[in-house]
Amino acid sequence: MKTNFITAFLTLVTLLGYAQSPASYVNPIIGTNEMGHTYPGATVPFGMVQLSPETDTIQYSVGQGYVKDVYRYCAGYQYSDKTIVGFSHTHFSGTGHSDLGDFLMMPTTGKVQLNPGTATHPESGYRSRFSHDTEVAKTGYYSVMLSDYNIKAELTTSSRVGFHRYTFPESDQANIILDMVAGIYNYDGKVVWSSIRVENDTLVTGYRQTQGWARERSMYFAMVFSKPIRNYGCRDEAKLAYSDFYRKFNTTKDFPEMSGRKLKTYFSFDTKAGEQILVKFALSPVSTEGALKNLQAEIPGWNFDQVRQQAENDWNKELSRITIEASDEKKIIFYTAMYHAFLSPTLYMDVDGMYRGLDHNNHKATGFENYTTFSLWDTYRALHPLFTLVQQKRTSDMINSMLAHQQQSVHHILPVWSHHANDNWCMIGYHAVSVIADAYMKGITGFDPAKALNACIASATYAPNDGIGDYMKYGYVPADKSSNAASKTLEYAYDDYCISQMAAKMGKADIAAGYAKRAEAYNYTWDAGTGFMRARKSDGTFQSPFDPLSTERQGFIEGNAWNYSLYVPQDPLKLIALHGGNKKFIAHLDSLFNVKLDEKHFAESEDITAAGLIGNYVHGNEPSHHVPYLYVFAGAPWKTQERIHQIVNTMYRNATDGLCGNDDCGQMSAWYVFSSIGFYPVCPGSNEYVIGSPSVEKATFNFENGKQFTVKATNLNDKNIYIQRILLNGKPLNGYILKHEDIMNGGMLELVMGAKAKK
Amino acid sequence: MKTNFITAFLTLVTLLGYAQSPASYVNPIIGTNEMGHTYPGATVPFGMVQLSPETDTIQYSVGQGYVKDVYRYCAGYQYSDKTIVGFSHTHFSGTGHSDLGDFLMMPTTGKVQLNPGTATHPESGYRSRFSHDTEVAKTGYYSVMLSDYNIKAELTTSSRVGFHRYTFPESDQANIILDMVAGIYNYDGKVVWSSIRVENDTLVTGYRQTQGWARERSMYFAMVFSKPIRNYGCRDEAKLAYSDFYRKFNTTKDFPEMSGRKLKTYFSFDTKAGEQILVKFALSPVSTEGALKNLQAEIPGWNFDQVRQQAENDWNKELSRITIEASDEKKIIFYTAMYHAFLSPTLYMDVDGMYRGLDHNNHKATGFENYTTFSLWDTYRALHPLFTLVQQKRTSDMINSMLAHQQQSVHHILPVWSHHANDNWCMIGYHAVSVIADAYMKGITGFDPAKALNACIASATYAPNDGIGDYMKYGYVPADKSSNAASKTLEYAYDDYCISQMAAKMGKADIAAGYAKRAEAYNYTWDAGTGFMRARKSDGTFQSPFDPLSTERQGFIEGNAWNYSLYVPQDPLKLIALHGGNKKFIAHLDSLFNVKLDEKHFAESEDITAAGLIGNYVHGNEPSHHVPYLYVFAGAPWKTQERIHQIVNTMYRNATDGLCGNDDCGQMSAWYVFSSIGFYPVCPGSNEYVIGSPSVEKATFNFENGKQFTVKATNLNDKNIYIQRILLNGKPLNGYILKHEDIMNGGMLELVMGAKAKK
Repeated sequence: MKTNFITAFLTLVTLLGYAQSPASYVNPIIGTNEMGHTYPGATVPFGMVQLSPETDTIQYSVGQGYVKDVYRYCAGYQYSDKTIVGFSHTHFSGTGHSDLGDFLMMPTTGKVQLNPGTATHPESGYRSRFSHDTEVAKTGYYSVMLSDYNIKAELTTSSRVGFHRYTFPESDQANIILDMVAGIYNYDGKVVWSSIRVENDTLVTGYRQTQGWARERSMYFAMVFSKPIRNYGCRDEAKLAYSDFYRKFNTTKDFPEMSGRKLKTYFSFDTKAGEQILVKFALSPVSTEGALKNLQAEIPGWNFDQVRQQAENDWNKELSRITIEASDEKKIIFYTAMYHAFLSPTLYMDVDGMYRGLDHNNHKATGFENYTTFSLWDTYRALHPLFTLVQQKRTSDMINSMLAHQQQSVHHILPVWSHHANDNWCMIGYHAVSVIADAYMKGITGFDPAKALNACIASATYAPNDGIGDYMKYGYVPADKSSNAASKTLEYAYDDYCISQMAAKMGKADIAAGYAKRAEAYNYTWDAGTGFMRARKSDGTFQSPFDPLSTERQGFIEGNAWNYSLYVPQDPLKLIALHGGNKKFIAHLDSLFNVKLDEKHFAESEDITAAGLIGNYVHGNEPSHHVPYLYVFAGAPWKTQERIHQIVNTMYRNATDGLCGNDDCGQMSAWYVFSSIGFYPVCPGSNEYVIGSPSVEKATFNFENGKQFTVKATNLNDKNIYIQRILLNGKPLNGYILKHEDIMNGGMLELVMGAKAKK
Repeated sequence: MKTNFITAFLTLVTLLGYAQSPASYVNPIIGTNEMGHTYPGATVPFGMVQLSPETDTIQYSVGQGYVKDVYRYCAGYQYSDKTIVGFSHTHFSGTGHSDLGDFLMMPTTGKVQLNPGTATHPESGYRSRFSHDTEVAKTGYYSVMLSDYNIKAELTTSSRVGFHRYTFPESDQANIILDMVAGIYNYDGKVVWSSIRVENDTLVTGYRQTQGWARERSMYFAMVFSKPIRNYGCRDEAKLAYSDFYRKFNTTKDFPEMSGRKLKTYFSFDTKAGEQILVKFALSPVSTEGALKNLQAEIPGWNFDQVRQQAENDWNKELSRITIEASDEKKIIFYTAMYHAFLSPTLYMDVDGMYRGLDHNNHKATGFENYTTFSLWDTYRALHPLFTLVQQKRTSDMINSMLAHQQQSVHHILPVWSHHANDNWCMIGYHAVSVIADAYMKGITGFDPAKALNACIASATYAPNDGIGDYMKYGYVPADKSSNAASKTLEYAYDDYCISQMAAKMGKADIAAGYAKRAEAYNYTWDAGTGFMRARKSDGTFQSPFDPLSTERQGFIEGNAWNYSLYVPQDPLKLIALHGGNKKFIAHLDSLFNVKLDEKHFAESEDITAAGLIGNYVHGNEPSHHVPYLYVFAGAPWKTQERIHQIVNTMYRNATDGLCGNDDCGQMSAWYVFSSIGFYPVCPGSNEYVIGSPSVEKATFNFENGKQFTVKATNLNDKNIYIQRILLNGKPLNGYILKHEDIMNGGMLELVMGAKAKK
């Protein structure tokens, strides 16, 4: 079945006239330096394993709060570093916080060292120097020479199983270190327990539980070596309790049960020159038994190259859901953006359907695949809408995953930031509602709408969460009752619009009307006096002092009043009216892009660099992502076209620091995918997209329903950035709004481009 | 079904002429002071829950080793104490180490206090003073007045669910404390993680994982209150990691997810005078879901008295497996001994058959009930042999449990000391082999003999364990290679005899011969020069200096050369020959009982008190348990009769300190049950019992096969302690050996007693 499909697919690729496969354009190194927080390692689309190198392991201290050096290593890797600490099996892509880096493995030779050592003195630990000249990062494959040991490390992966191939020099002391303490966003004591069993001379199983971003997170593994272990051992750097166990056995050498709070282990071998030792490393959210099942199901054999090829095939399959015509450089940026967009959410279940639920019980996913890593405050904007076009089956799975989360939650609410059987509650809003309503409005099936609507309402009415109780009482979140009150009011109002939309379509008029009313809550934050959105207190007055540029203590999160004053996606026309009409609104938008900022502004914000700023427009962070498209609603689409063209071409580059901010689980990249093709979902849940300015010559969506939709940018070049005419299936389109159904029905959108703005 | 059975049983009880049920004689307070280490609380036969008061919670420090105060609280309770700290749900009975005390609950009134306070200043914490005058301890029921709060606490239980009934005074602040840190054999940091979910206003679930005697042990719970919780909260005394969780929520008050390393919680209510709050508290080794299933299956309703009655019925059923005629005082001692014998091993599975395996995966017990708490070094001697008579079905279950353990063990060996999905490796030997072979020899079925024999052999040949590799290499455990070498050699030799017996019966002559050879290893420890068993070094010489009375550094464990020189249960006649024949052997035995010891001897041994000593005979510890019966083999049965009479009547008393040593999971009590009836299994695996001296007038075994076997002590009184004649089914018995089959076939053993020794 699978082979046939791949053959058919490759034939299709040939027929479509590709010289190169989409995967071949992907450059996973993009965004690995500075702010992108992407990782260069091996993974498959939405895979459970993200097998990638760590270039440093920085610890923070409890209570220390934001630590810049820790923040740099959200993905474990910074391109500017000179050493590699090891290869771990779980990574977030593009987050501004982390928790992963599970099961760090490092091949070494010579004396066994069980601490990582320092970047300046790598010889003080197990880490190694490396050169980017030896580094290869491709879809599903990563390779590097570990120069201190003369070991070539290669990584590939299936969905649940990482696959290591280490080519050793001749050595009577070749080691593979497995550091159970190492982790990303680590602190002393984060690992509450870890345990390893050496089942036989090639099979090792284990797990660890951590207390980090996820309050209680367990991950299990099973690993197999291609060669029998000669000897092995461990050190537990935590103190041990009394036990006959430790009296009877030397548990540090060749003893098959190793456990503790700070456990570091090694496995040693003799190697001939050029000898390869392969390690298959399977994960499970449930048990070592589950990990072993995953291992046997996904990589039963030892053919590394075949697994690598399969990973590339998987990527080609997913990436070819949109095929484009553009320059090679643009293809690299585009397909890497698609690649980044297809990394999260991540699969979170064993091959038998078992997964750990939010209630810490094990559950079986029946009728769906269970996903985690929902960074919803980021991804409801463009990533999930992109999935409604090119990952419809997975959208259904993701919604079912969120509904399961809701049912298992003791709060009975949808995820805020779903992370491995936990909610880490990062950021604000109940934006799962947006994802669900958007999918429902677009006719995506495979989940129970009634159950889904109830889950949305439960989330929108859960009083203890983040000011929702006060929001329901006052009609807005009062600034004296809750932090980031203005941002919350605005985002809750948008989410409520989504519920209203969904309820209306389901014929539940009362619910629809109630939430439509709540969706107008943005009015409470509008301060006509200053012309900005502003946090209001429970006595009805606005919070003072007011500084529209400050991001601190103004009632906004990851943005300022300027940014959030443009956030009413559910009703841009009313927003424009609040601002005093088109002219004033356009002037406001213009000044947003044109203002010259003091350096102090945004200095305290994590996710923002100068490269991501145009005036006070902050592309490196999400609240601005729809903003350039708002000109369209004010009757100035050419201004949208200019800005989109500018952002697409300056803020996404084929470079290690090619992302101007955190990729945020694919949201930044999904923005690019939409905007480079020529339209964007300003208001998920509305079934409408706003046409911007294309920067690829042609893009074809190959839908799961078998239809195709092509966006063609006629006469596009560096100067012809303005849309002159819009033809949908050959007929002129009235305005700049594209309906979802027009896309899904298949056909052709032709954007005829020219050098002059069409006013 | 059940009701019918109970009716039939009660009819039977009436027909047999009982004025009182067996359970009514049980006094759980016996052994709760000083060395017995029994607990007074509520439990059912072999139940998973042991719900009992803690009178103190002593912590030890890591690396501190043996701590006398901690040791005193192995069962959580010392009768001499004046305060109760709370009621926890898991206890060992009679052990000399511990690990339990899971989920300590305490009802209080007034200000919420979350630390236990001190015995001298109970008002400094949640504990309360109490008086034994208010204390009731019966089979399946415990009650006490907590005088500091004027709360009556009552406890009962089913197998998996503890049931609390608290009668409160009028209070606007009635609290139930749930201390997730408290435990027996506790130390700072023992709890690696604990987690609680308040599912709704009456249901709470949670779990904790500890690192203690069991290296990694998890226990889950579900509890239901009979009245809605008014408010609740917690304190985590460990530092917390960074998380948005803690930023967004006040997790200490009315927040339904409470977790941490040092978590203490409370649940508060208003109460009227005399208002009862009931709490059902279910355990599970697997999950909170499992605990909830157990709760719903076992105690669906709220009828406390009915559950209490059911527990008593369960006890009556089990205790009436042997019915005796004796004085009330003797009945109290006898039925309490049976009660203690039927507390362990403990059930370790949910109602759906799921349990946590030694590999930390969850397993389903198919075709058997899964048990844990196998203190095999103690219990292979008399407790398991007792079970081969009166718990045949459970014997089969226990063997299947041990075989599952073996299959899940990374060492692939049978349990040494099986404890909640762990082996704590306490003490020496592979005595599971004895339990299995004994049962097999006796025709107990329901397990796979081939699998069982393989498991026995795997255990007997696992080189890394406790000198077994050297034992196989040298023929004995060399003293310079392993501690307690002489004890190990002697006990391994006995276990090997058991394997030999089993293999022979299975027709595996080669295996039988090989292990029969190994069973002679005791010869290596025999030092003809001193006339004692003695540790031999790898060079063949004996270890010096030699002190036959010392229990330290002589190669013996929990005994000295005197005691262990009498340990060749598999061949008493050869042992006697080694000692130089009957006369010398009898003299040796006599001197054992008659020697006057310095105080320094045994001073360093935990499990021994003056009350348990007769000369150098140490009844408080197991290696001596068969010793008084050895006179029979040397042709002096009257000396056995004297000593048995002496021990039975002086070392088992109806008193708080009525046990002269740790009850050791029922071994001490099982010794009493056998010896008071009149025979004892000197060598499990031989299918023979040695006749001693009865101290009850009549005892009838009511077997599972429907047959009955009665031992009648004709003319028994305080002076008539000597057997004059033995009649088996009316015919004279030749000698003092009783065959297992003679018992199981049913019938009558008449022991005609007299005042003069029959020499």
